[in-house]
Amino acid sequence: MTTEQLVAQIHKKQSFLCIGLDVDLTKIPQHLLKEEDPIFAFNKEIIDATHHLCVAYKPNTAFYEAYGIKGWVSLEKTIKYLNTNYPDIFTIADAKRGDIGNTSTMYAKAFFEDLGFDSVTVAPYMGKDSVEPFLAFKDKHTILLALTSNAGAFDYQTKLVDNKELYKQVLVTSKTYKGAENLMYVVGATKAEYLSEIRQIIPNSFLLVPGVGAQGGNLADVCKYGMSSNVGLLINSSRGIIYASNNLDFANAAAQKAQDLQKQMKIELDKLN
Amino acid sequence: MTTEQLVAQIHKKQSFLCIGLDVDLTKIPQHLLKEEDPIFAFNKEIIDATHHLCVAYKPNTAFYEAYGIKGWVSLEKTIKYLNTNYPDIFTIADAKRGDIGNTSTMYAKAFFEDLGFDSVTVAPYMGKDSVEPFLAFKDKHTILLALTSNAGAFDYQTKLVDNKELYKQVLVTSKTYKGAENLMYVVGATKAEYLSEIRQIIPNSFLLVPGVGAQGGNLADVCKYGMSSNVGLLINSSRGIIYASNNLDFANAAAQKAQDLQKQMKIELDKLN
Repeated sequence: MTTEQLVAQIHKKQSFLCIGLDVDLTKIPQHLLKEEDPIFAFNKEIIDATHHLCVAYKPNTAFYEAYGIKGWVSLEKTIKYLNTNYPDIFTIADAKRGDIGNTSTMYAKAFFEDLGFDSVTVAPYMGKDSVEPFLAFKDKHTILLALTSNAGAFDYQTKLVDNKELYKQVLVTSKTYKGAENLMYVVGATKAEYLSEIRQIIPNSFLLVPGVGAQGGNLADVCKYGMSSNVGLLINSSRGIIYASNNLDFANAAAQKAQDLQKQMKIELDKLN
Repeated sequence: MTTEQLVAQIHKKQSFLCIGLDVDLTKIPQHLLKEEDPIFAFNKEIIDATHHLCVAYKPNTAFYEAYGIKGWVSLEKTIKYLNTNYPDIFTIADAKRGDIGNTSTMYAKAFFEDLGFDSVTVAPYMGKDSVEPFLAFKDKHTILLALTSNAGAFDYQTKLVDNKELYKQVLVTSKTYKGAENLMYVVGATKAEYLSEIRQIIPNSFLLVPGVGAQGGNLADVCKYGMSSNVGLLINSSRGIIYASNNLDFANAAAQKAQDLQKQMKIELDKLN
């Protein structure tokens, strides 16, 4: 999917919501455990109930790998279900990969070609030749970790390197990578005030923003500081949506939470015009 | 496996060699492609021919993920084969994972419990709460990326943060993490001269050193600057060993290359006494 197609979907659906499919068998409705593939059964119902309210889904690969080969089967079924039934959805493999050149190419092939995701999250620590292999794929997107939303972000990411925080160095340096037009960035929503400085470095790049809760939290602040003329934002919510209920009505409850966020997003999108 | 058991194996085998199982179907002997599981068939022959010359095997997960579910089956068969037949071998999942707390726990369970590896490589960028979940597992080891051997290492790892290179900050900071006694570090062999400075920060930690070729390269330098009183080194070689030949004799050829390195390692170990 091209960035232009993603932006068109955002305007069509009046939403820039991404739903995180972080499926934990201890948290899903008990009746699904009788299914042959409970994880896929859960994802399918969530997707069918929410696809018109969001533009992206983001399975975090850890939740699938934790179940071994069965988990990978569930991941493969989920992405194939999305690509077959909802081809206008932008898909994100939240895998946080990164390795030396030829090895990163193997990861890129795994997620872009074998599984068929539109994008994958990548860790920046190993630098240029660990990221560029991902950028070589046409109409595929590499979402580089810049500023994450966890406490450990302050260990290194916000430390000064040449008078600039490391996460800003990641933004500046990665702009020079070959294929940089295929870059997006992870920027945690817990630091909405940082977004205006980030926009000075990357005015138009898409930002994947985790850490906005089901209640909307600081959505307005994130938009105030982070929205660009082409929207440039994907706001992710995982547990706040998918675990809204663990009863038979879980899919409807998830849709309700997704709609709450979509309505707030419509208000923000209206401000762009 | 405990660190003490690993050190005992090193002295017993007179080797601190780690063999990287980075299996690429385009590079293995053609006759194996007729096997039901060519990757596992290749690994099995390599392991059977070299297990007495090395103390560790390190499959890089990218090479397995690239083949989808089939690849994960090959990985699972390989680790189970090692754990069943060669329980004294130290096993490393070279996965370079790392995510927010509860998600890192999922990865740790995947590699330590589901697959049964002794250790996993982890990327440091997301900081403390992305690493500590791995450190919580008893007698399991977390091998943190510090200084990698690729060109991109100079993008961020060698940049100064508070007058200290980022990779040294990673060493200093990670020492304060809960469970730090379970940490080992990746340090690229292309910078042997850095090892003496690294040893000032972490005198006894085990270092996983990639980038030493089948010819031995700078093995003597790495030992001169990096060996500690408990050895403290695992030297990895992947392609130089496993692709020594792509004919019927490939396993024997691999064993020959492994023995060349083991002999050099014996010389270095003798210097310790």
